[in-house]
Amino acid sequence: MSIKVPQGFTMTGVACGIKSDLNKEDLTLIYCPEGAVAAGVYTENLMRAPCVDWDRDHTPSNDIRVVVVNSGNANACTGKQGVDDTQSMATLAAEAVGTSPEHVLIMSTGIIGTFLPMLKIETGISQACSHLSNDTDAFLSAARGILTTDKSHKVAGREIIIAGTPIRIAGMCKGAGMIGPSMATMLGTILTDAPLTADDAQRLLVEVVNDSFNCISVEGHTSTNDTVLLLASGKAKQTPLSGQELASFQAAVKEVCVELAKQIPADGEGASHLITIDVTGTATRQDAFQIAKTIADSALVKTGIAGADPNWGRIISAVGYAGVDLDPACVGLSLNNIPVYSNGGPVDFDEQLASDSIRKHRETSIQLQVGNGSGTVRFWTSDLTVDYVRFNSEYHT
Amino acid sequence: MSIKVPQGFTMTGVACGIKSDLNKEDLTLIYCPEGAVAAGVYTENLMRAPCVDWDRDHTPSNDIRVVVVNSGNANACTGKQGVDDTQSMATLAAEAVGTSPEHVLIMSTGIIGTFLPMLKIETGISQACSHLSNDTDAFLSAARGILTTDKSHKVAGREIIIAGTPIRIAGMCKGAGMIGPSMATMLGTILTDAPLTADDAQRLLVEVVNDSFNCISVEGHTSTNDTVLLLASGKAKQTPLSGQELASFQAAVKEVCVELAKQIPADGEGASHLITIDVTGTATRQDAFQIAKTIADSALVKTGIAGADPNWGRIISAVGYAGVDLDPACVGLSLNNIPVYSNGGPVDFDEQLASDSIRKHRETSIQLQVGNGSGTVRFWTSDLTVDYVRFNSEYHT
Repeated sequence: MSIKVPQGFTMTGVACGIKSDLNKEDLTLIYCPEGAVAAGVYTENLMRAPCVDWDRDHTPSNDIRVVVVNSGNANACTGKQGVDDTQSMATLAAEAVGTSPEHVLIMSTGIIGTFLPMLKIETGISQACSHLSNDTDAFLSAARGILTTDKSHKVAGREIIIAGTPIRIAGMCKGAGMIGPSMATMLGTILTDAPLTADDAQRLLVEVVNDSFNCISVEGHTSTNDTVLLLASGKAKQTPLSGQELASFQAAVKEVCVELAKQIPADGEGASHLITIDVTGTATRQDAFQIAKTIADSALVKTGIAGADPNWGRIISAVGYAGVDLDPACVGLSLNNIPVYSNGGPVDFDEQLASDSIRKHRETSIQLQVGNGSGTVRFWTSDLTVDYVRFNSEYHT
Repeated sequence: MSIKVPQGFTMTGVACGIKSDLNKEDLTLIYCPEGAVAAGVYTENLMRAPCVDWDRDHTPSNDIRVVVVNSGNANACTGKQGVDDTQSMATLAAEAVGTSPEHVLIMSTGIIGTFLPMLKIETGISQACSHLSNDTDAFLSAARGILTTDKSHKVAGREIIIAGTPIRIAGMCKGAGMIGPSMATMLGTILTDAPLTADDAQRLLVEVVNDSFNCISVEGHTSTNDTVLLLASGKAKQTPLSGQELASFQAAVKEVCVELAKQIPADGEGASHLITIDVTGTATRQDAFQIAKTIADSALVKTGIAGADPNWGRIISAVGYAGVDLDPACVGLSLNNIPVYSNGGPVDFDEQLASDSIRKHRETSIQLQVGNGSGTVRFWTSDLTVDYVRFNSEYHT
């Protein structure tokens, strides 16, 4: 897959020694010399890292010049020094490109409770600034620079034509939750050359994240550093998008974010299945969301899928304790399109066929009908395997 | 440990072929010929089994004669026939001892979505009625008859002297949550010969369960069949307990229930650590409870303990997403009495010593201080091991 990098940005990922493997990129710098409109969505964890506070304070913005991300150290739970280090990181990046710190956004991911190695950060920023480029290789190295335990980089892109003008969207992210140890953080950055107002960018990002990154769960963990940023350089076109053009653009951004979000559970440590949970028929979307998330967070459901067990009882029981008011007699369930439960009672089905359909495919579909309401959600998670536990037990900080 | 069986009850557990292992007890019958005061606390799962509805409808009561429990089949998610089968089970037990169904309570545990084998239940009830006894062996066989995947029976007892009269309390339970497959049900029965009013019995049971069975979590699952019953024969003494006597009695029942509850995570499949979580200093007990449960339900925390990793970052991060308003700067944490985090920042500690203290002991203590409020809770869970996942993946219904 070839990602077309949006105009107006240069970037790179470099290895500056924050990670123990000195060959791995651990610092990413994205530069928008003429300034980008920027929006952000952040973790709700009260123990959030100082870089999250920094970005919250500086978005939405009409003029972000630099995003600098380090991996290997989350700079979370690091008290006053952590706050100072985030500020220093912004200052170092600002000085390196000749701007001031308020035009810089920061993300950090990695181990919690250890101070940032600021000399390495300084070296990394300087090194990155001399390697900035707008080509696909630079984008991919930037995408690698934000990873922690991910098996590979996670990227997605689109080029759409709006009023005859090509507009590019390119996104990168790193995994959450199952992404082990003290590194349970999800980071995402979406770049575009579309022209947007800061208000539209922020509203659009919140809506898109609700249907993508907020609809994945690997173990229900909301981390200290979760951040998704949207940067729009406006280089593709002069007038800010509005009306139907803006809606088309938002749909494309959502496609990119869904494609990115699904890669996170699909790449969970030891995961052998990507599970898609569709809940329909609830009174509200929030009800559907709550049921889907409860199913996604059930260790019994997840170990069952890992074992190719079409065990609908575990799913139905999770529906029952999701805290959503519903009529048990209206509940129906299909696994990989095989009806297993209907109108509140079991359905005769071929268990071997159902088990085979789980075992033989990497994707499993859980389709739950909960009534006749208009509430609906699509949610993704991974299964829970022996390898997951092995990884997370044996990995020490 | 010798359990003294309260006066006024006879009981037994028999093997009637509901479980595939024909040597295992799978039906327990407890008989109180002169009637017992009975109270119950039940699952809040909307998909609750019909036996739960039955017991809810018949407690509190002044006159329960029989409790009949089958293991191996939960009779949950079985629609109309499930309701009929529960009623038949009550009728069969009532007829066997010469009473009417409203004096019978029912519990079922085991696989979900399969109809009860009523002929086996009928045979089991008849067989049990000819083996009823008041001795310890009978109590233990009854305790075995309610088990599913538990490694062994779970019992606890006390004899206290109230106003010169010995009063006995004897409890049995079976495991929840991690107790795998479609059998994620917790059942408990507390017998006593204390004299109680039905109202006192119900109030007391609710309070005691809140500090015991409701303070354990193996994976956050509230099952379809969870039930705790208290039966008081009144044989020890004539006048119902009140005032300080009642308080002393309640304290003893709480001791029994805590002792039982702790056995559940301790016996979780594959569990290598019983984890005790103490949260103090919150504004309310509910806040402390919510934080403790969030820590207990974190797969990252649980795999960390399994790996003897003193990884406080996973715990602190869980505190942050528990949904409780708190001041991060007031949070402190000790692991096995070793301070690792204080006033919102990391503390230097000997990681090897902390890791050894986890590895070398079966019990791990997490002590969290969250401010200066009066809210406090003690909560228990188990760790998450490779063996747990293996068991729950490979066990098929």
